[in-house]
Amino acid sequence: MDNWLASLITETPTEGYDLAVKMSRVAVKLTQPDAAMRDKLRPEYAEDAEALIAVSHVVATNFATVAAANGYWRK
Amino acid sequence: MDNWLASLITETPTEGYDLAVKMSRVAVKLTQPDAAMRDKLRPEYAEDAEALIAVSHVVATNFATVAAANGYWRK
Amino acid sequence: MDNWLASLITETPTEGYDLAVKMSRVAVKLTQPDAAMRDKLRPEYAEDAEALIAVSHVVATNFATVAAANGYWRK
Amino acid sequence: MDNWLASLITETPTEGYDLAVKMSRVAVKLTQPDAAMRDKLRPEYAEDAEALIAVSHVVATNFATVAAANGYWRK
Amino acid sequence: MDNWLASLITETPTEGYDLAVKMSRVAVKLTQPDAAMRDKLRPEYAEDAEALIAVSHVVATNFATVAAANGYWRK
Amino acid sequence: MDNWLASLITETPTEGYDLAVKMSRVAVKLTQPDAAMRDKLRPEYAEDAEALIAVSHVVATNFATVAAANGYWRK
Repeated sequence: MDNWLASLITETPTEGYDLAVKMSRVAVKLTQPDAAMRDKLRPEYAEDAEALIAVSHVVATNFATVAAANGYWRK
Repeated sequence: MDNWLASLITETPTEGYDLAVKMSRVAVKLTQPDAAMRDKLRPEYAEDAEALIAVSHVVATNFATVAAANGYWRK
Repeated sequence: MDNWLASLITETPTEGYDLAVKMSRVAVKLTQPDAAMRDKLRPEYAEDAEALIAVSHVVATNFATVAAANGYWRK
Repeated sequence: MDNWLASLITETPTEGYDLAVKMSRVAVKLTQPDAAMRDKLRPEYAEDAEALIAVSHVVATNFATVAAANGYWRK
Repeated sequence: MDNWLASLITETPTEGYDLAVKMSRVAVKLTQPDAAMRDKLRPEYAEDAEALIAVSHVVATNFATVAAANGYWRK
Repeated sequence: MDNWLASLITETPTEGYDLAVKMSRVAVKLTQPDAAMRDKLRPEYAEDAEALIAVSHVVATNFATVAAANGYWRK
């Protein structure tokens, strides 16, 4: 993949959250590069409550990093 | 979704906790945008002890970020 | 719920730990507001080793936040 | 329980690690106060690889807090 | 293994993320040094949604460390 | 166990990572002191993808602490 993560700095917390979602997905892509296989797995997590909660946990972990990088957008 | 996370700053720890709960839910919405499917999954986690504990873990992770952003509401 | 988390500041680490336990439980209450259902689920985690360990992990995550808020009670 | 966590400060990292182990166990005690039930559950995790790894994760989380409290015992 | 982790400093967040992925894999190698066995296990996680999410969580945890080491590449 | 964790300070990130691996194992030893039982459990996690990922997560959590203790070996 190219330079997909050029910076951790975002304008707003909402954009920072979107970045955290993206970061969470890239690790999956790097581990399973086959897009067809990823599509096949999608219902496995998008229709499974525990998997969705696990996704949310990963996003929370990445958001903590993005938020710290942005000084929590305090001003 | 619009600018749903305008700021991490809240008046009180209680409001910060509510924000952490909201943040935990948004990742689920972004991963499973179909509201009908989410409603169908609800009993799967709301009536399952391990899933509820997992939800609580995600909230704790998000609350850590919100609390740091607010200087722990120390005054 | 009312203003149940008025402050993260406690007198001692022990009280901070108790607060972390409380914080861990509130996320469960907010996700499953039905007290009768929560009572029904109680044996599911209180008599299951993995669930108890998971509870302990959530408490540890919340305690990290409370401890930081209190400057680790260093005096 | 009495004031079991009087301080997060320890002489050495080893003692800090022991404290982290203790902290990890107390959350279990508070959630399952029945000692006989806890004894019954013991083989469930002490003879299960995934549960032992989960215990180690909780200890790691608590140790992070204890280590920060002690300034990482840097001198 | 030789000195595989000479530094946590990287030029860009993208390279930092790649390092976090590498760090996540090394723990697996140290625990299961047999490359043939690791290859055998690969489909078990690369074709399993929950395992892929778990991988992403480990990467997020390691990336937090790498990002902090690099001052979040703020300049 | 004796004073096995005399210090969190290491010369290099690689040595810090090795220390994180050791720390992750000690919690298992303290919870399951019987070496024969631990040997019996070894295939359970060394040949299971999810368990190996979980091990990697614990190492990542401990490495975060070791890295912070060492000022990220920034020089």
